[in-house]
Amino acid sequence: MYIKPSKKLTLKAAIKMSEKALKKSEEIGKPFVVAIVDAGGNLIYLHRMEDAFFTSVGIATDKAFTAAALKKGTHELTNRVKPEHDLFGLNITNNGRIITFGGGLPIIVENEVIGGIGVSGGTVDEDIAVATAALEILKEI
Amino acid sequence: MYIKPSKKLTLKAAIKMSEKALKKSEEIGKPFVVAIVDAGGNLIYLHRMEDAFFTSVGIATDKAFTAAALKKGTHELTNRVKPEHDLFGLNITNNGRIITFGGGLPIIVENEVIGGIGVSGGTVDEDIAVATAALEILKEI
Amino acid sequence: MYIKPSKKLTLKAAIKMSEKALKKSEEIGKPFVVAIVDAGGNLIYLHRMEDAFFTSVGIATDKAFTAAALKKGTHELTNRVKPEHDLFGLNITNNGRIITFGGGLPIIVENEVIGGIGVSGGTVDEDIAVATAALEILKEI
Amino acid sequence: MYIKPSKKLTLKAAIKMSEKALKKSEEIGKPFVVAIVDAGGNLIYLHRMEDAFFTSVGIATDKAFTAAALKKGTHELTNRVKPEHDLFGLNITNNGRIITFGGGLPIIVENEVIGGIGVSGGTVDEDIAVATAALEILKEI
Repeated sequence: MYIKPSKKLTLKAAIKMSEKALKKSEEIGKPFVVAIVDAGGNLIYLHRMEDAFFTSVGIATDKAFTAAALKKGTHELTNRVKPEHDLFGLNITNNGRIITFGGGLPIIVENEVIGGIGVSGGTVDEDIAVATAALEILKEI
Repeated sequence: MYIKPSKKLTLKAAIKMSEKALKKSEEIGKPFVVAIVDAGGNLIYLHRMEDAFFTSVGIATDKAFTAAALKKGTHELTNRVKPEHDLFGLNITNNGRIITFGGGLPIIVENEVIGGIGVSGGTVDEDIAVATAALEILKEI
Repeated sequence: MYIKPSKKLTLKAAIKMSEKALKKSEEIGKPFVVAIVDAGGNLIYLHRMEDAFFTSVGIATDKAFTAAALKKGTHELTNRVKPEHDLFGLNITNNGRIITFGGGLPIIVENEVIGGIGVSGGTVDEDIAVATAALEILKEI
Repeated sequence: MYIKPSKKLTLKAAIKMSEKALKKSEEIGKPFVVAIVDAGGNLIYLHRMEDAFFTSVGIATDKAFTAAALKKGTHELTNRVKPEHDLFGLNITNNGRIITFGGGLPIIVENEVIGGIGVSGGTVDEDIAVATAALEILKEI
Protein backbone atom coordinates (compact mmCIF):
# COMPACT_ATOMS: atom_id res chain seq x y z
CA MET A 1 0.00 0.00 0.00
CA TYR A 2 2.83 2.37 0.85
CA ILE A 3 5.26 0.97 -1.69
CA LYS A 4 4.05 0.33 -5.23
CA PRO A 5 5.51 -2.06 -7.81
CA SER A 6 7.06 -0.36 -10.81
CA LYS A 7 9.24 -0.99 -13.90
CA LYS A 8 12.71 0.14 -14.90
CA LEU A 9 14.30 0.58 -18.33
CA THR A 10 17.65 -1.22 -18.75
CA LEU A 11 20.80 -0.04 -20.51
CA LYS A 12 20.50 -3.07 -22.78
CA ALA A 13 17.13 -1.85 -24.01
CA ALA A 14 18.56 1.64 -24.55
CA ILE A 15 21.43 0.29 -26.63
CA LYS A 16 18.98 -1.66 -28.79
CA MET A 17 16.90 1.48 -29.26
CA SER A 18 20.02 3.42 -30.23
CA GLU A 19 20.97 0.79 -32.84
CA LYS A 20 17.52 0.95 -34.37
CA ALA A 21 17.68 4.75 -34.36
CA LEU A 22 21.02 4.67 -36.17
CA LYS A 23 19.56 2.45 -38.89
CA LYS A 24 16.65 4.83 -39.37
CA SER A 25 19.05 7.81 -39.37
CA GLU A 26 21.11 6.28 -42.18
CA GLU A 27 17.93 5.67 -44.11
CA ILE A 28 17.01 9.34 -43.77
CA GLY A 29 20.57 10.34 -44.53
CA LYS A 30 21.14 12.93 -41.80
CA PRO A 31 23.09 12.91 -38.53
CA PHE A 32 21.02 12.91 -35.34
CA VAL A 33 21.48 13.00 -31.60
CA VAL A 34 19.47 10.42 -29.64
CA ALA A 35 18.97 10.65 -25.87
CA ILE A 36 17.16 8.23 -23.57
CA VAL A 37 16.13 9.04 -19.98
CA ASP A 38 14.51 7.00 -17.21
CA ALA A 39 11.18 7.70 -15.53
CA GLY A 40 12.82 10.30 -13.29
CA GLY A 41 14.18 12.25 -16.27
CA ASN A 42 17.80 11.17 -15.68
CA LEU A 43 19.95 10.27 -18.68
CA ILE A 44 20.61 6.59 -19.44
CA TYR A 45 22.01 6.86 -22.93
CA LEU A 46 23.08 9.37 -25.55
CA HIS A 47 24.71 9.18 -28.95
CA ARG A 48 25.66 11.97 -31.33
CA MET A 49 26.42 11.06 -34.92
CA GLU A 50 29.28 12.83 -36.69
CA ASP A 51 28.32 16.25 -38.00
CA ALA A 52 25.17 16.41 -35.88
CA PHE A 53 24.66 19.85 -34.33
CA PHE A 54 26.36 19.93 -30.92
CA THR A 55 23.45 21.96 -29.57
CA SER A 56 21.31 18.94 -30.35
CA VAL A 57 22.84 17.25 -27.31
CA GLY A 58 20.92 19.51 -24.96
CA ILE A 59 17.81 19.54 -27.13
CA ALA A 60 17.59 15.75 -27.47
CA THR A 61 18.19 15.33 -23.73
CA ASP A 62 15.51 17.86 -22.84
CA LYS A 63 13.04 16.38 -25.35
CA ALA A 64 13.48 13.00 -23.64
CA PHE A 65 13.12 14.71 -20.24
CA THR A 66 9.94 16.50 -21.32
CA ALA A 67 8.33 13.39 -22.81
CA ALA A 68 9.12 11.32 -19.69
CA ALA A 69 7.84 14.08 -17.42
CA LEU A 70 4.67 15.02 -19.27
CA LYS A 71 3.93 11.49 -20.48
CA LYS A 72 3.30 12.66 -24.03
CA GLY A 73 5.10 13.46 -27.26
CA THR A 74 6.72 16.90 -27.33
CA HIS A 75 4.89 17.60 -30.61
CA GLU A 76 1.63 17.49 -28.63
CA LEU A 77 2.75 20.60 -26.77
CA THR A 78 3.59 22.76 -29.76
CA ASN A 79 0.20 24.35 -30.22
CA ARG A 80 -0.69 24.41 -26.57
CA VAL A 81 2.12 26.81 -25.63
CA LYS A 82 1.17 29.37 -28.27
CA PRO A 83 -0.11 32.70 -26.93
CA GLU A 84 -3.78 31.84 -27.48
CA HIS A 85 -3.68 28.38 -25.89
CA ASP A 86 -3.91 26.82 -22.46
CA LEU A 87 -0.24 26.08 -21.76
CA PHE A 88 1.24 29.37 -22.97
CA GLY A 89 4.25 29.87 -20.71
CA LEU A 90 4.85 26.19 -19.94
CA ASN A 91 7.97 26.25 -22.11
CA ILE A 92 9.88 28.54 -19.78
CA THR A 93 9.29 26.51 -16.62
CA ASN A 94 11.75 23.98 -15.21
CA ASN A 95 14.77 26.11 -16.10
CA GLY A 96 13.86 26.02 -19.77
CA ARG A 97 14.08 22.24 -20.01
CA ILE A 98 10.53 21.81 -21.40
CA ILE A 99 10.84 21.37 -25.16
CA THR A 100 7.65 22.00 -27.07
CA PHE A 101 8.46 20.92 -30.60
CA GLY A 102 8.45 17.38 -31.90
CA GLY A 103 11.10 14.71 -31.42
CA GLY A 104 10.47 13.57 -27.86
CA LEU A 105 8.31 10.53 -27.10
CA PRO A 106 7.48 8.78 -23.82
CA ILE A 107 8.63 5.19 -23.39
CA ILE A 108 5.56 3.28 -22.29
CA VAL A 109 5.43 -0.36 -21.22
CA GLU A 110 2.11 -1.85 -20.12
CA ASN A 111 0.62 1.61 -19.57
CA GLU A 112 3.49 2.75 -17.38
CA VAL A 113 5.79 5.57 -18.50
CA ILE A 114 9.28 4.20 -17.79
CA GLY A 115 11.27 6.87 -19.61
CA GLY A 116 11.56 9.09 -22.63
CA ILE A 117 13.47 9.28 -25.91
CA GLY A 118 14.51 12.53 -27.55
CA VAL A 119 15.87 13.01 -31.05
CA SER A 120 17.33 16.16 -32.57
CA GLY A 121 19.11 16.91 -35.82
CA GLY A 122 16.57 16.81 -38.62
CA THR A 123 13.19 18.32 -39.29
CA VAL A 124 10.53 17.74 -36.66
CA ASP A 125 9.06 14.96 -38.80
CA GLU A 126 12.44 13.29 -39.23
CA ASP A 127 13.19 13.53 -35.51
CA ILE A 128 9.84 11.92 -34.72
CA ALA A 129 10.48 9.21 -37.32
CA VAL A 130 13.81 8.28 -35.69
CA ALA A 131 12.28 8.24 -32.20
CA THR A 132 9.35 6.16 -33.40
CA ALA A 133 11.64 3.64 -35.07
CA ALA A 134 13.67 3.28 -31.87
CA LEU A 135 10.55 2.65 -29.81
CA GLU A 136 9.52 -0.22 -32.09
CA ILE A 137 12.34 -2.28 -30.64
CA LEU A 138 10.44 -2.50 -27.35
CA LYS A 139 7.75 -4.58 -29.03
CA GLU A 140 10.34 -7.13 -30.07
CA ILE A 141 12.05 -7.55 -26.73
CA MET B 1 5.40 52.95 13.89
CA TYR B 2 8.61 51.69 12.40
CA ILE B 3 7.67 48.04 12.92
CA LYS B 4 4.32 46.85 11.69
CA PRO B 5 2.27 43.90 12.91
CA SER B 6 1.90 41.13 10.38
CA LYS B 7 0.46 37.64 9.96
CA LYS B 8 2.17 34.36 9.25
CA LEU B 9 0.84 31.17 7.72
CA THR B 10 1.47 28.10 9.87
CA LEU B 11 2.53 24.62 8.80
CA LYS B 12 -0.66 23.34 10.41
CA ALA B 13 -2.75 25.49 8.06
CA ALA B 14 -0.71 24.28 5.10
CA ILE B 15 -1.29 20.65 6.06
CA LYS B 16 -5.04 21.30 6.29
CA MET B 17 -4.97 22.96 2.88
CA SER B 18 -3.10 19.97 1.48
CA GLU B 19 -5.68 17.55 2.88
CA LYS B 20 -8.50 19.52 1.34
CA ALA B 21 -6.59 19.65 -1.96
CA LEU B 22 -6.15 15.87 -1.90
CA LYS B 23 -9.89 15.39 -1.43
CA LYS B 24 -10.63 17.67 -4.38
CA SER B 25 -7.97 15.89 -6.46
CA GLU B 26 -9.59 12.52 -5.84
CA GLU B 27 -12.94 14.01 -6.83
CA ILE B 28 -11.42 15.20 -10.11
CA GLY B 29 -9.61 11.91 -10.52
CA LYS B 30 -6.15 13.15 -11.51
CA PRO B 31 -2.82 13.38 -9.68
CA PHE B 32 -1.66 16.91 -8.76
CA VAL B 33 1.27 18.65 -7.15
CA VAL B 34 0.36 21.24 -4.51
CA ALA B 35 2.87 23.81 -3.23
CA ILE B 36 2.39 26.44 -0.55
CA VAL B 37 4.75 29.35 0.03
CA ASP B 38 4.88 32.10 2.65
CA ALA B 39 4.74 35.85 2.05
CA GLY B 40 8.45 35.79 1.15
CA GLY B 41 7.86 33.25 -1.61
CA ASN B 42 9.67 30.51 0.31
CA LEU B 43 8.26 27.00 0.34
CA ILE B 44 6.33 25.84 3.42
CA TYR B 45 4.74 22.72 2.04
CA LEU B 46 4.64 20.53 -1.06
CA HIS B 47 3.05 17.24 -1.96
CA ARG B 48 3.20 15.28 -5.19
CA MET B 49 0.63 12.56 -5.74
CA GLU B 50 1.75 9.32 -7.44
CA ASP B 51 1.94 9.62 -11.21
CA ALA B 52 1.79 13.41 -11.16
CA PHE B 53 4.24 14.94 -13.64
CA PHE B 54 7.57 15.48 -11.87
CA THR B 55 7.96 18.73 -13.75
CA SER B 56 4.85 19.89 -11.87
CA VAL B 57 7.03 20.21 -8.77
CA GLY B 58 8.76 23.26 -10.20
CA ILE B 59 5.61 24.60 -11.83
CA ALA B 60 3.44 24.35 -8.69
CA THR B 61 6.19 25.93 -6.59
CA ASP B 62 6.62 28.79 -9.03
CA LYS B 63 2.86 29.34 -9.34
CA ALA B 64 2.70 29.73 -5.57
CA PHE B 65 5.75 32.00 -5.70
CA THR B 66 4.20 34.14 -8.44
CA ALA B 67 0.82 34.45 -6.71
CA ALA B 68 2.40 35.41 -3.38
CA ALA B 69 4.71 37.89 -5.09
CA LEU B 70 2.23 39.55 -7.43
CA LYS B 71 -0.70 39.23 -5.02
CA LYS B 72 -2.99 37.85 -7.69
CA GLY B 73 -3.98 34.63 -9.38
CA THR B 74 -1.54 33.48 -12.04
CA HIS B 75 -4.47 33.23 -14.48
CA GLU B 76 -4.78 37.01 -14.25
CA LEU B 77 -1.38 37.32 -15.93
CA THR B 78 -2.04 35.09 -18.95
CA ASN B 79 -3.30 37.79 -21.27
CA ARG B 80 -1.13 40.53 -19.94
CA VAL B 81 2.16 38.86 -20.98
CA LYS B 82 1.09 38.35 -24.58
CA PRO B 83 3.06 40.30 -27.18
CA GLU B 84 0.54 43.13 -27.51
CA HIS B 85 -0.10 43.65 -23.80
CA ASP B 86 1.31 45.63 -20.90
CA LEU B 87 3.35 42.94 -19.15
CA PHE B 88 4.91 41.33 -22.20
CA GLY B 89 8.32 40.08 -21.04
CA LEU B 90 7.39 39.74 -17.37
CA ASN B 91 7.40 35.99 -17.70
CA ILE B 92 11.11 35.73 -18.30
CA THR B 93 12.12 37.85 -15.32
CA ASN B 94 13.11 36.38 -11.94
CA ASN B 95 15.02 33.50 -13.54
CA GLY B 96 11.88 32.22 -15.24
CA ARG B 97 10.00 31.76 -11.97
CA ILE B 98 7.00 33.91 -12.95
CA ILE B 99 4.25 31.54 -14.12
CA THR B 100 1.55 33.13 -16.21
CA PHE B 101 -1.06 30.41 -16.59
CA GLY B 102 -3.69 29.50 -14.03
CA GLY B 103 -3.26 27.41 -10.90
CA GLY B 104 -1.57 29.87 -8.55
CA LEU B 105 -3.60 31.88 -6.03
CA PRO B 106 -2.54 34.29 -3.31
CA ILE B 107 -3.37 33.36 0.27
CA ILE B 108 -5.12 36.39 1.70
CA VAL B 109 -6.24 36.89 5.30
CA GLU B 110 -7.94 40.14 6.25
CA ASN B 111 -6.58 41.88 3.17
CA GLU B 112 -3.01 40.79 3.82
CA VAL B 113 -1.24 38.46 1.40
CA ILE B 114 0.40 35.92 3.68
CA GLY B 115 1.44 33.42 1.01
CA GLY B 116 0.54 31.62 -2.17
CA ILE B 117 -0.69 28.24 -3.27
CA GLY B 118 0.23 26.65 -6.58
CA VAL B 119 -1.31 23.59 -8.17
CA SER B 120 -0.12 21.72 -11.27
CA GLY B 121 -1.13 18.47 -12.90
CA GLY B 122 -4.50 18.98 -14.58
CA THR B 123 -6.00 21.48 -16.96
CA VAL B 124 -5.80 25.12 -15.93
CA ASP B 125 -9.40 24.95 -14.71
CA GLU B 126 -8.74 21.83 -12.67
CA ASP B 127 -5.59 23.31 -11.14
CA ILE B 128 -7.55 26.42 -10.14
CA ALA B 129 -10.35 24.25 -8.71
CA VAL B 130 -7.90 22.36 -6.48
CA ALA B 131 -6.24 25.59 -5.30
CA THR B 132 -9.62 27.19 -4.62
CA ALA B 133 -10.80 24.19 -2.61
CA ALA B 134 -7.64 24.30 -0.51
CA LEU B 135 -8.13 27.99 0.24
CA GLU B 136 -11.63 27.36 1.58
CA ILE B 137 -10.14 25.72 4.63
CA LEU B 138 -8.90 29.12 5.78
CA LYS B 139 -12.47 30.22 6.37
CA GLU B 140 -13.00 27.36 8.75
CA ILE B 141 -9.90 27.76 10.88
CA MET C 1 15.42 -8.88 -19.45
CA TYR C 2 15.13 -5.41 -20.96
CA ILE C 3 12.63 -4.13 -18.43
CA LYS C 4 13.29 -4.75 -14.75
CA PRO C 5 10.77 -4.80 -11.89
CA SER C 6 11.18 -1.98 -9.40
CA LYS C 7 9.48 -0.23 -6.45
CA LYS C 8 7.97 3.20 -5.98
CA LEU C 9 7.46 5.31 -2.84
CA THR C 10 3.89 6.57 -2.36
CA LEU C 11 2.70 9.96 -1.12
CA LYS C 12 0.92 8.16 1.70
CA ALA C 13 4.24 6.79 2.96
CA ALA C 14 5.80 10.25 2.70
CA ILE C 15 3.00 11.82 4.75
CA LYS C 16 3.47 9.16 7.43
CA MET C 17 7.21 9.87 7.48
CA SER C 18 6.51 13.58 7.80
CA GLU C 19 4.20 13.02 10.76
CA LYS C 20 6.82 10.94 12.51
CA ALA C 21 9.44 13.60 11.77
CA LEU C 22 7.21 16.29 13.26
CA LYS C 23 6.85 14.28 16.47
CA LYS C 24 10.61 13.88 16.72
CA SER C 25 11.09 17.60 15.98
CA GLU C 26 8.80 18.58 18.83
CA GLU C 27 10.71 16.26 21.10
CA ILE C 28 13.96 18.00 20.15
CA GLY C 29 12.27 21.37 20.40
CA LYS C 30 13.51 22.98 17.18
CA PRO C 31 11.89 23.75 13.84
CA PHE C 32 13.06 21.64 10.87
CA VAL C 33 12.50 21.31 7.16
CA VAL C 34 11.89 17.77 5.92
CA ALA C 35 12.09 16.84 2.22
CA ILE C 36 11.41 13.49 0.58
CA VAL C 37 12.41 12.59 -2.99
CA ASP C 38 11.83 9.54 -5.18
CA ALA C 39 14.50 7.29 -6.70
CA GLY C 40 15.05 9.79 -9.50
CA GLY C 41 15.75 12.63 -7.08
CA ASN C 42 12.44 14.40 -7.74
CA LEU C 43 10.54 15.91 -4.80
CA ILE C 44 7.50 14.06 -3.43
CA TYR C 45 7.01 15.92 -0.17
CA LEU C 46 8.30 18.87 1.82
CA HIS C 47 7.30 20.57 5.03
CA ARG C 48 8.84 23.57 6.75
CA MET C 49 7.95 24.19 10.38
CA GLU C 50 7.40 27.77 11.54
CA ASP C 51 10.62 29.62 12.23
CA ALA C 52 12.74 27.06 10.41
CA PHE C 53 15.44 28.70 8.26
CA PHE C 54 14.03 29.31 4.79
CA THR C 55 17.41 28.34 3.32
CA SER C 56 16.79 24.93 4.83
CA VAL C 57 14.25 24.32 2.05
CA GLY C 58 17.02 24.00 -0.52
CA ILE C 59 19.37 22.21 1.85
CA ALA C 60 16.83 19.57 2.92
CA THR C 61 15.81 19.00 -0.70
CA ASP C 62 19.41 18.60 -1.83
CA LYS C 63 20.26 16.31 1.10
CA ALA C 64 17.39 14.05 0.05
CA PHE C 65 18.59 14.28 -3.58
CA THR C 66 22.16 13.41 -2.60
CA ALA C 67 21.16 10.45 -0.42
CA ALA C 68 18.88 9.03 -3.14
CA ALA C 69 21.56 9.53 -5.79
CA LEU C 70 24.59 8.24 -3.90
CA LYS C 71 22.66 5.60 -1.98
CA LYS C 72 24.22 6.61 1.32
CA GLY C 73 23.83 9.04 4.18
CA THR C 74 25.17 12.52 3.45
CA HIS C 75 27.22 12.30 6.67
CA GLU C 76 29.22 9.51 5.03
CA LEU C 77 30.53 12.04 2.52
CA THR C 78 31.75 14.67 4.96
CA ASN C 79 35.28 13.37 5.38
CA ARG C 80 35.63 12.08 1.87
CA VAL C 81 35.34 15.52 0.26
CA LYS C 82 38.05 17.06 2.44
CA PRO C 83 41.22 18.12 0.59
CA GLU C 84 43.18 15.01 1.58
CA HIS C 85 40.50 12.46 0.69
CA ASP C 86 39.25 10.58 -2.34
CA LEU C 87 36.13 12.59 -3.20
CA PHE C 88 37.56 16.09 -2.76
CA GLY C 89 35.65 18.16 -5.30
CA LEU C 90 32.53 15.99 -5.40
CA ASN C 91 30.60 18.67 -3.54
CA ILE C 92 30.72 21.15 -6.40
CA THR C 93 29.41 18.78 -9.06
CA ASN C 94 25.77 18.56 -10.16
CA ASN C 95 25.26 22.32 -9.96
CA GLY C 96 26.13 22.32 -6.28
CA ARG C 97 23.29 19.98 -5.33
CA ILE C 98 25.56 17.42 -3.60
CA ILE C 99 25.35 18.06 0.14
CA THR C 100 28.16 16.55 2.16
CA PHE C 101 27.12 17.09 5.75
CA GLY C 102 24.69 14.94 7.70
CA GLY C 103 20.91 14.97 7.51
CA GLY C 104 20.23 13.07 4.30
CA LEU C 105 19.47 9.35 4.33
CA PRO C 106 18.53 6.95 1.52
CA ILE C 107 15.12 5.29 1.69
CA ILE C 108 15.78 1.59 1.22
CA VAL C 109 13.18 -1.15 0.88
CA GLU C 110 14.32 -4.74 0.36
CA ASN C 111 17.79 -3.59 -0.72
CA GLU C 112 16.44 -1.18 -3.30
CA VAL C 113 16.95 2.58 -2.94
CA ILE C 114 13.51 4.02 -3.66
CA GLY C 115 14.18 7.58 -2.55
CA GLY C 116 15.83 9.86 -0.04
CA ILE C 117 14.90 11.98 2.97
CA GLY C 118 16.66 15.21 3.87
CA VAL C 119 16.35 17.18 7.09
CA SER C 120 17.73 20.63 7.86
CA GLY C 121 17.29 23.04 10.74
CA GLY C 122 19.21 21.69 13.70
CA THR C 123 22.69 20.42 14.36
CA VAL C 124 23.90 17.62 12.11
CA ASP C 125 23.10 15.11 14.86
CA GLU C 126 19.62 16.49 15.33
CA ASP C 127 18.94 16.48 11.58
CA ILE C 128 20.04 12.85 11.39
CA ALA C 129 17.86 11.98 14.40
CA VAL C 130 14.76 13.44 12.71
CA ALA C 131 15.51 11.65 9.43
CA THR C 132 16.14 8.38 11.25
CA ALA C 133 12.88 8.65 13.17
CA ALA C 134 10.97 9.26 9.94
CA LEU C 135 12.49 6.19 8.31
CA GLU C 136 11.33 3.99 11.16
CA ILE C 137 7.78 4.33 9.92
CA LEU C 138 8.68 2.19 6.91
CA LYS C 139 9.18 -0.81 9.16
CA GLU C 140 5.66 -0.46 10.47
CA ILE C 141 3.86 -0.15 7.16
CA MET D 1 48.57 27.81 -43.66
CA TYR D 2 45.52 29.53 -42.27
CA ILE D 3 43.52 26.33 -42.04
CA LYS D 4 45.05 23.33 -40.31
CA PRO D 5 44.26 19.67 -40.78
CA SER D 6 42.75 18.03 -37.74
CA LYS D 7 41.27 14.75 -36.53
CA LYS D 8 37.80 13.92 -35.33
CA LEU D 9 36.56 11.13 -33.09
CA THR D 10 33.73 9.11 -34.66
CA LEU D 11 30.60 7.75 -33.01
CA LYS D 12 31.76 4.29 -34.10
CA ALA D 13 34.95 4.68 -32.03
CA ALA D 14 32.90 5.91 -29.07
CA ILE D 15 30.62 2.88 -29.26
CA LYS D 16 33.65 0.57 -29.32
CA MET D 17 35.09 2.38 -26.31
CA SER D 18 31.77 2.00 -24.52
CA GLU D 19 31.68 -1.74 -25.20
CA LYS D 20 35.19 -2.14 -23.84
CA ALA D 21 34.25 -0.06 -20.79
CA LEU D 22 31.21 -2.27 -20.17
CA LYS D 23 33.42 -5.36 -20.23
CA LYS D 24 35.80 -3.82 -17.72
CA SER D 25 32.86 -2.69 -15.56
CA GLU D 26 31.51 -6.22 -15.39
CA GLU D 27 34.96 -7.44 -14.45
CA ILE D 28 35.06 -4.94 -11.58
CA GLY D 29 31.48 -5.77 -10.70
CA LYS D 30 30.07 -2.26 -10.24
CA PRO D 31 27.77 -0.07 -12.35
CA PHE D 32 29.42 2.95 -14.02
CA VAL D 33 28.52 5.92 -16.17
CA VAL D 34 30.79 6.50 -19.18
CA ALA D 35 30.80 9.76 -21.12
CA ILE D 36 32.79 10.66 -24.22
CA VAL D 37 33.21 14.20 -25.55
CA ASP D 38 34.87 15.62 -28.63
CA ALA D 39 37.71 18.14 -28.77
CA GLY D 40 35.19 20.94 -28.19
CA GLY D 41 33.99 19.35 -24.96
CA ASN D 42 30.62 18.45 -26.45
CA LEU D 43 29.06 15.08 -25.68
CA ILE D 44 29.31 12.32 -28.30
CA TYR D 45 28.29 9.37 -26.21
CA LEU D 46 27.03 8.42 -22.76
CA HIS D 47 25.84 5.26 -21.12
CA ARG D 48 24.59 4.68 -17.58
CA MET D 49 24.47 1.11 -16.31
CA GLU D 50 21.52 0.07 -14.12
CA ASP D 51 21.91 1.12 -10.51
CA ALA D 52 24.74 3.54 -11.28
CA PHE D 53 24.34 6.79 -9.34
CA PHE D 54 22.27 9.21 -11.44
CA THR D 55 24.51 12.04 -10.27
CA SER D 56 27.32 10.22 -12.08
CA VAL D 57 25.79 11.40 -15.35
CA GLY D 58 26.91 14.95 -14.68
CA ILE D 59 30.19 13.92 -13.09
CA ALA D 60 31.24 11.59 -15.93
CA THR D 61 30.30 14.21 -18.53
CA ASP D 62 32.26 16.91 -16.72
CA LYS D 63 35.28 14.64 -16.21
CA ALA D 64 35.35 14.04 -19.96
CA PHE D 65 34.90 17.79 -20.53
CA THR D 66 37.73 18.63 -18.14
CA ALA D 67 40.14 16.08 -19.61
CA ALA D 68 39.45 17.23 -23.18
CA ALA D 69 39.79 20.86 -22.18
CA LEU D 70 42.91 20.64 -20.02
CA LYS D 71 44.49 17.86 -22.08
CA LYS D 72 45.30 15.82 -19.00
CA GLY D 73 43.81 13.26 -16.65
CA THR D 74 41.52 14.76 -14.03
CA HIS D 75 43.59 12.96 -11.36
CA GLU D 76 46.50 15.22 -12.28
CA LEU D 77 44.50 18.18 -10.98
CA THR D 78 43.61 16.81 -7.55
CA ASN D 79 46.62 18.14 -5.70
CA ARG D 80 46.99 21.28 -7.71
CA VAL D 81 43.62 22.73 -6.66
CA LYS D 82 44.29 22.31 -2.95
CA PRO D 83 44.56 25.52 -0.93
CA GLU D 84 48.37 25.66 -0.98
CA HIS D 85 48.86 24.83 -4.65
CA ASP D 86 49.06 26.61 -7.99
CA LEU D 87 45.57 25.94 -9.34
CA PHE D 88 43.59 26.59 -6.17
CA GLY D 89 40.24 27.96 -7.31
CA LEU D 90 40.32 26.36 -10.76
CA ASN D 91 37.63 23.92 -9.70
CA ILE D 92 34.94 26.55 -9.39
CA THR D 93 35.51 28.11 -12.79
CA ASN D 94 33.49 27.21 -15.88
CA ASN D 95 30.23 26.97 -13.94
CA GLY D 96 31.62 24.19 -11.77
CA ARG D 97 32.31 21.90 -14.71
CA ILE D 98 36.02 21.37 -13.91
CA ILE D 99 36.30 18.04 -12.08
CA THR D 100 39.48 17.55 -10.12
CA PHE D 101 39.35 13.94 -9.02
CA GLY D 102 40.31 10.95 -11.12
CA GLY D 103 38.25 9.25 -13.81
CA GLY D 104 38.65 11.65 -16.74
CA LEU D 105 41.29 11.06 -19.42
CA PRO D 106 42.07 12.90 -22.64
CA ILE D 107 41.66 10.99 -25.90
CA ILE D 108 44.93 11.49 -27.74
CA VAL D 109 45.75 10.33 -31.26
CA GLU D 110 49.18 11.11 -32.69
CA ASN D 111 49.75 13.82 -30.12
CA GLU D 112 46.47 15.53 -30.84
CA VAL D 113 43.77 15.72 -28.16
CA ILE D 114 40.62 14.75 -30.02
CA GLY D 115 38.33 14.36 -27.02
CA GLY D 116 37.93 13.10 -23.49
CA ILE D 117 36.44 10.18 -21.65
CA GLY D 118 34.94 10.41 -18.18
CA VAL D 119 33.94 7.56 -15.90
CA SER D 120 32.03 7.76 -12.62
CA GLY D 121 30.54 5.17 -10.31
CA GLY D 122 33.36 3.43 -8.49
CA THR D 123 36.41 4.48 -6.54
CA VAL D 124 38.79 6.85 -8.26
CA ASP D 125 41.06 3.92 -9.12
CA GLU D 126 38.19 1.91 -10.57
CA ASP D 127 36.94 4.87 -12.60
CA ILE D 128 40.44 5.35 -14.03
CA ALA D 129 40.70 1.61 -14.78
CA VAL D 130 37.47 1.68 -16.79
CA ALA D 131 38.53 4.81 -18.70
CA THR D 132 41.96 3.32 -19.40
CA ALA D 133 40.46 0.08 -20.68
CA ALA D 134 38.18 2.02 -23.02
CA LEU D 135 41.10 3.99 -24.43
CA GLU D 136 42.96 0.80 -25.34
CA ILE D 137 40.49 0.19 -28.12
CA LEU D 138 41.98 3.13 -30.00
CA LYS D 139 45.20 1.20 -30.51
CA GLU D 140 43.28 -1.56 -32.23
CA ILE D 141 41.23 0.50 -34.63
